[in-house]
Amino acid sequence: MRKIVIAFQGNENIAAYIVDGLMASLGEIEMRKFPDGETYVRLITDVLDKEVVVVATLHRPDDKFLSLVFLLRLLRDGGASKITLVAPYLAYMRQDKQFKPGEAVTSTYFSELISPFIDELVTIDPHLHRHHSMNEIYSANAKVLHASKSIATWIKTSVSNPLLIGPDSESEQWVSQVAALANAPYIVLNKERHGDRNVEISFPEISSFHERTPVLVDDIISTAHTMIVTAKRLLELGFNKPICIGVHAIFADNSFQELQEAGAAQIVTCNTIAHSSNGIDLSSIIIDALQ
Amino acid sequence: MRKIVIAFQGNENIAAYIVDGLMASLGEIEMRKFPDGETYVRLITDVLDKEVVVVATLHRPDDKFLSLVFLLRLLRDGGASKITLVAPYLAYMRQDKQFKPGEAVTSTYFSELISPFIDELVTIDPHLHRHHSMNEIYSANAKVLHASKSIATWIKTSVSNPLLIGPDSESEQWVSQVAALANAPYIVLNKERHGDRNVEISFPEISSFHERTPVLVDDIISTAHTMIVTAKRLLELGFNKPICIGVHAIFADNSFQELQEAGAAQIVTCNTIAHSSNGIDLSSIIIDALQ
Repeated sequence: MRKIVIAFQGNENIAAYIVDGLMASLGEIEMRKFPDGETYVRLITDVLDKEVVVVATLHRPDDKFLSLVFLLRLLRDGGASKITLVAPYLAYMRQDKQFKPGEAVTSTYFSELISPFIDELVTIDPHLHRHHSMNEIYSANAKVLHASKSIATWIKTSVSNPLLIGPDSESEQWVSQVAALANAPYIVLNKERHGDRNVEISFPEISSFHERTPVLVDDIISTAHTMIVTAKRLLELGFNKPICIGVHAIFADNSFQELQEAGAAQIVTCNTIAHSSNGIDLSSIIIDALQ
Repeated sequence: MRKIVIAFQGNENIAAYIVDGLMASLGEIEMRKFPDGETYVRLITDVLDKEVVVVATLHRPDDKFLSLVFLLRLLRDGGASKITLVAPYLAYMRQDKQFKPGEAVTSTYFSELISPFIDELVTIDPHLHRHHSMNEIYSANAKVLHASKSIATWIKTSVSNPLLIGPDSESEQWVSQVAALANAPYIVLNKERHGDRNVEISFPEISSFHERTPVLVDDIISTAHTMIVTAKRLLELGFNKPICIGVHAIFADNSFQELQEAGAAQIVTCNTIAHSSNGIDLSSIIIDALQ
């Protein structure tokens, strides 16, 4: 039976790839804001007894949440036999414990809010920090996919003589994996965070890598602060302009331009969040997971 | 036992009145956005075994919903003995049936989303159109308060020789009530809606009211379209500049300025939504309902 794929606003491109890959049909919805800021949603396609895949990446989640849940409710009420949420970028994975008493552990709160509306969740490289598995947080069946192979392939075919640079010790496992697949050396920085936008970094000894092209890799590029600081320091140390790679292109405020101005030779991201920097297509790993 | 009142962002003024009226204490929270657009919430005040009142008006609800629910969850997790949501303006009351197949009946969907997080809901003049009682929609204990007395008192003390004008036949019951309390005559317009921003109005015979001050009253001022069209027509008919009164000051886009430019002598709203036009304080009826 053919699946139905529904593209939430802003997910049209990747949803079209998924429709093709699954030989599915594209479901039709109508969604708009009333002048008072409330959302109107209408499900036009008949979903009775159909498996439905909703593609909705969840960066800047606050304004999207109600419309998404209204849509998921319509699918349930319309008799869909299975509802899969593909959220290439998953929101609220960062606050996974109380650092101060009284803090909302929003990773748990968010998962409890959305889980009742879905049967399955598919996401890519969620920020699993203190949790080891999505099933510690999500009660819906959760499939976690990884961008590392696709990133390594891009590096192998696009960069000659790369040196991979991870932003902090936490990223070591992930960066080492990409480096091994790309057949390249890697280092990780020491990073101390003093606030949302205030980070200090220090380099290990890297003079022996001088002739290599630095490739900064990170999972989420949000303020891009770490990459900006790192790019500037690499240029001061006499390195070539670095290539900057991220899985998730959040790019808060003006950070994309700031990273360009800091000396990035190229900024490349995966298409988990639609952005002009998208250069690594992950739709095939999503399609594999859905088959 | 003293209640704790918590002001959601933007509700500080009316919450301060409620704190005073209830001789309650003001609860402390911290709420901000991370650069990536996610919300941080922290409950600082101890709420164990306390009755807590959260004041959160819900115009433009989409961006507010998650932060509000995170806060309500913190109160529940913190052991509050009763959680009352005071939403002077309640969102998603307008789509209360399917006009076309497949439409989300968001009044039901929204109430089902928020109800589990609260024990009681207090709101003012919700847009009850096809439903007769809030309890048809909300499973939480719902108290509906009315602005009509306060508006009538304002008219009696501020306008000499008023003629009240309601926007459509639906408003007749409400307008007639305000008019009776204000000791003034009233008329209602015939209104045909052709879209969110496209309405046609027609007047009954009103030449006998020429010496009176027109007072346009409505529950929600959103695009202000009806009031703008009505104000212009009244001036064409040789009436004095009208006074425009609304319960809920949503004022989409540039509509407040457009209403001023259309010839409103004065625009006065209740303080259910904080706005420069607020001139009628409803905190006392909220305080009465909470006591």
